[in-house]
Amino acid sequence: MDKIRITLPDQSVRDYPIGTTGLEIATSISRSLEKDSLAIAVNGKVKDINLPLNQDAHIRIITFDSDEGKDIYWHSSSHIMAQAIEELFPGTKFGAGPSIENGFYYDIDSPHSFTPEDFKLIEDKMKEIGKRELTIRRQELSRDEAITYFKTSRQDLYKVEILENTIKEDDVVSVYHQGEFSDLCTGPHLPNTSRLKAVKVLSVSSSYWRGDASRQVMQRIYAITFPKQTLLDEYLFQLEEAKKRDHKKLGKQLQLFMFSPMVGRGLPVWLPNGTIIRRTLEQFLREELLKRGYVEVITPHIGNLEMYKTSGHYPYYSDSQFAPMTVEDEQYLLKPMNCPHHHQIYSNQPRSYRDLPLRLAEFGTVYRYEQSGELNGLSRVRGFTQDDAHIYCTHDQLKAELINAIELTQLVFKLFNMPVKTRLSFWDPNNKDKYAGSPEMWEQSQEEILDVAKTMDLDYFVGMGEAAFYGPKFDFIVKDAIGRKWQLGTVQVDYVMPERFGLEYVGPENTKLRPVIIHRAPFGSMERFLSILIEHFAGNFPTWLSPVQAAVLPISEVFNDYAADVEKQLADAGVRVKLDLRNEKIGYKIRDWETQKVPYMLVIGGKEAESGSISIRKHGQGDQGTVPVAEFVKMISTEIQSRSL
Amino acid sequence: MDKIRITLPDQSVRDYPIGTTGLEIATSISRSLEKDSLAIAVNGKVKDINLPLNQDAHIRIITFDSDEGKDIYWHSSSHIMAQAIEELFPGTKFGAGPSIENGFYYDIDSPHSFTPEDFKLIEDKMKEIGKRELTIRRQELSRDEAITYFKTSRQDLYKVEILENTIKEDDVVSVYHQGEFSDLCTGPHLPNTSRLKAVKVLSVSSSYWRGDASRQVMQRIYAITFPKQTLLDEYLFQLEEAKKRDHKKLGKQLQLFMFSPMVGRGLPVWLPNGTIIRRTLEQFLREELLKRGYVEVITPHIGNLEMYKTSGHYPYYSDSQFAPMTVEDEQYLLKPMNCPHHHQIYSNQPRSYRDLPLRLAEFGTVYRYEQSGELNGLSRVRGFTQDDAHIYCTHDQLKAELINAIELTQLVFKLFNMPVKTRLSFWDPNNKDKYAGSPEMWEQSQEEILDVAKTMDLDYFVGMGEAAFYGPKFDFIVKDAIGRKWQLGTVQVDYVMPERFGLEYVGPENTKLRPVIIHRAPFGSMERFLSILIEHFAGNFPTWLSPVQAAVLPISEVFNDYAADVEKQLADAGVRVKLDLRNEKIGYKIRDWETQKVPYMLVIGGKEAESGSISIRKHGQGDQGTVPVAEFVKMISTEIQSRSL
Repeated sequence: MDKIRITLPDQSVRDYPIGTTGLEIATSISRSLEKDSLAIAVNGKVKDINLPLNQDAHIRIITFDSDEGKDIYWHSSSHIMAQAIEELFPGTKFGAGPSIENGFYYDIDSPHSFTPEDFKLIEDKMKEIGKRELTIRRQELSRDEAITYFKTSRQDLYKVEILENTIKEDDVVSVYHQGEFSDLCTGPHLPNTSRLKAVKVLSVSSSYWRGDASRQVMQRIYAITFPKQTLLDEYLFQLEEAKKRDHKKLGKQLQLFMFSPMVGRGLPVWLPNGTIIRRTLEQFLREELLKRGYVEVITPHIGNLEMYKTSGHYPYYSDSQFAPMTVEDEQYLLKPMNCPHHHQIYSNQPRSYRDLPLRLAEFGTVYRYEQSGELNGLSRVRGFTQDDAHIYCTHDQLKAELINAIELTQLVFKLFNMPVKTRLSFWDPNNKDKYAGSPEMWEQSQEEILDVAKTMDLDYFVGMGEAAFYGPKFDFIVKDAIGRKWQLGTVQVDYVMPERFGLEYVGPENTKLRPVIIHRAPFGSMERFLSILIEHFAGNFPTWLSPVQAAVLPISEVFNDYAADVEKQLADAGVRVKLDLRNEKIGYKIRDWETQKVPYMLVIGGKEAESGSISIRKHGQGDQGTVPVAEFVKMISTEIQSRSL
Repeated sequence: MDKIRITLPDQSVRDYPIGTTGLEIATSISRSLEKDSLAIAVNGKVKDINLPLNQDAHIRIITFDSDEGKDIYWHSSSHIMAQAIEELFPGTKFGAGPSIENGFYYDIDSPHSFTPEDFKLIEDKMKEIGKRELTIRRQELSRDEAITYFKTSRQDLYKVEILENTIKEDDVVSVYHQGEFSDLCTGPHLPNTSRLKAVKVLSVSSSYWRGDASRQVMQRIYAITFPKQTLLDEYLFQLEEAKKRDHKKLGKQLQLFMFSPMVGRGLPVWLPNGTIIRRTLEQFLREELLKRGYVEVITPHIGNLEMYKTSGHYPYYSDSQFAPMTVEDEQYLLKPMNCPHHHQIYSNQPRSYRDLPLRLAEFGTVYRYEQSGELNGLSRVRGFTQDDAHIYCTHDQLKAELINAIELTQLVFKLFNMPVKTRLSFWDPNNKDKYAGSPEMWEQSQEEILDVAKTMDLDYFVGMGEAAFYGPKFDFIVKDAIGRKWQLGTVQVDYVMPERFGLEYVGPENTKLRPVIIHRAPFGSMERFLSILIEHFAGNFPTWLSPVQAAVLPISEVFNDYAADVEKQLADAGVRVKLDLRNEKIGYKIRDWETQKVPYMLVIGGKEAESGSISIRKHGQGDQGTVPVAEFVKMISTEIQSRSL
């Protein structure tokens, strides 16, 4: 038997000779895959692409498009950066060099004190190492061999300390070599330094060896790399744009939200302007829910711990929960999710198949523990409001209900002109212990999800191992105005909770049956969604969402009465309008309202007062001419009602 | 010096001879006060009305109108009931006999087993004892004298046990005598059994001596008494009506809310129908807030414990709070009130006098600990939503802002046709330690409150000792449809929290000044308000609040298409309408929707389908004739928009 059977992600099966490498498989599939391939997942475990395969296996070729691919690419890049620094600044010793969300860093102990002036030098040397096309080679050693190697060949006492303190005596460790450079590393890694095409060293800061303030101070050098120059250019443009659009900066400038240590870390307070935006979004969604047959409920922000034990959220997810509170002889949890509360509503009365689907919606605020170091504006918080809903339906209704839920999600993203890709988040079949429910249930519901994706002609891809513990889901990844991708919105299938909570309905044959549950949230979290909207629009919200939609600016107090009349006409039409009667020059007033990013500034002087008109100035677009007040009221009302951008 | 100076509640001062009793003072004021007087408060302490006064004092004559008066009246009535039982059933021994919220009970150990058949007998005997006009006389004894007395004269071992176990050796105790009956009691009591005019024995249940299940089983007899027969009649009518209107029963029948042990005790879950009512009430209030210059905010449901230490709510009110949760190096409290969160918003930016008043409103859900035995439907819960707001204003703006806030509260009660009396809740000047802030502050703000009450010509009375710890307030006591009184809504003045939180604004002279805060909530708690509304309307909500406003009922499936068209016309007009296509007789459908208390049932048959009309049936009022659909749409829309009853 000199053949092995290789199963590809699309379930197709190919035979290869024993000892075939991932790279050879990639080559056999296509030239472009060969070029893009970075590593290989063998039965769910990521390995070097040059590893010879000796047994039948399910495999997946990993490219830079996936998180796993980026992780490997940046990890190898950190080795290349270390090699570059070693060549440029001899005597430098190396601590840890991991990949991070965007790029990587290396903590180094160097006689040279690094400044941004050194960055170009390092970048050039890294690119040069890339051009040397060095093979990246894995070597396995016993712990003692590795200690000897790092003591003698590399005089690297940091790696020796790691080996001595964290590796067991009998363990085998791996060392990766590229040219003259070697590093202690579990890998996997790129096959060759030639994969490095574009590099940017970003910053330098200080850190401590092993994060311990009593140990050696290290220099931490951050950088990012890409397999194409255009990807780096795009990233640097996004970085620059993102700084300008930073929701924390704009949130403060436009007074949308605040944090206060007295209220608490990671607990957003919605200021009046932010609350207007949130209520407007909620009202939009409430109208859509009504059209789609949802009913709204309100549930408490705490729940009996027994409920979370039943759902399995406690204690398995207690790391991300606030600690329980004892109340008399019971324990209560600040609710980390709304689902179990809704299941209690479902089971509050007998349900018949005639009552289904039951679609329970709630703007439910949940609380989850995040380490204070992880908190970040509205993007990462300890309390947030989900535009949550749970749909309880029969199995026959599942497909139609999934489509109904996905269509609503699509409507939301279309409203903000955000292109969307759908990830079908499936379980990891090599890691079944992580999931509740039977393999049959998983296979069946994943097929149903695939069927819906095809029926709706979604732009989709499969994410293995991305499912919730109770079922597979649709996740929506949108692109914002500066090309960044965000995971927003989710539609999930759940066969597990109906079992755990013993949910039932009486079927047409008068037998008791289990409903299926769909969990869904188009915005996801109102807080995080606002942070993305702020950056997407750079704070220039469309008129329907703007906290102030028009400012009436008389050029002198002579026109105050007429200006007040204009204000009233707009307010009566439901427009959010402010009258600026400050005793200031019109130029000052306009600049001030421009800073507030108010869509319409209505300038009023003698000409306008005489003719019953206003001069329109649009935010960022200057003078738009003079129109009768009634015409403007009609125009802005139409714009608001149609929720146009 | 044989005179004493007596200061009355209206601050008028009168001289009386030393030894004058409360009853004599009452007589000197008016005959009706003499008749109504039950006891006297001397420098804030309640005493027997026959007690001779020997020193200058602030006094208040206590009548049945006050809680203190009812407490004394019912406590004395429990003695009279005990006397009646002793006379009727010799050998009965007496445990404890306190007054309760409505009436009183006595726990007795009797050879006779009581049933409702005995109630009339007891009532008649009690009235007879009233007619005997027995003086109720206080006697003070040493502990040992009292033990001897109850051992020998009354053979009452329960009282002996109380004396031996709970009274210190050197203490003096009091015994109250009336005719042949005596009881160990601290008092105070009525002067004479003749004050008893009307009595109803309500029920009998069992209890344990001193609440201990290992001790003697007692019989607990509940009763209520009144100084006038009409008051008893009114009470019994209310009791009967209240049973029919019980919000727990109707809440279930109309599916407005639910409780579940899995969610937790005292934690209401708003079902879809209840949520519609709540959102409709909120939207009504939101519109009114907008008109009155409020801005809405949203704050988290937890807060750093430091904030509640600053406000003084922790640890002083920790008995009524959930236990703090530890998060990293901080402690967090489930918020018992919204105020401190709003103060953080105030101090988030520099404020100028030009920014004031700042009116921050929030529908804020708060959590307070109540003993599980105290929980009661939506009336007494552990989590509730306040229609809260805090107005930060200059001292010059205070009066106008108080009026603005009170007018809004009045609008709410008028909307539901609930007559309202205003209590000016002042501090207890004899118990100043309970309050924060200086006496000058209290005097000044109470004067301001009185001034507003007079300016607005409110129907008001003063409640001494009813203030919040941080300031005096207006409390609104409304009467519902069956004459019961409820305290609803509050408007409070606060000079204390601005100090504690260091709140400031820059005045016109460019100096830093403290704002005043008004706390106010017209509904108070949305949960409690709903419970009152349910009982006020007996579940027959006005159309604008009804979860379903109209049901379309075709008499046969032949008319289903036309019925669907009628439904669509109503839904398009924003009416909450249901189409009942069940294959049932029209009589069945009508009865079913009547049970659901839907205001309009629209019956559709051949005549209606032909003429484009509907036959209207109004809930509880039967047939209202046939009208064209368009006319009904117009009619119901007007009714909804005008929020008519």
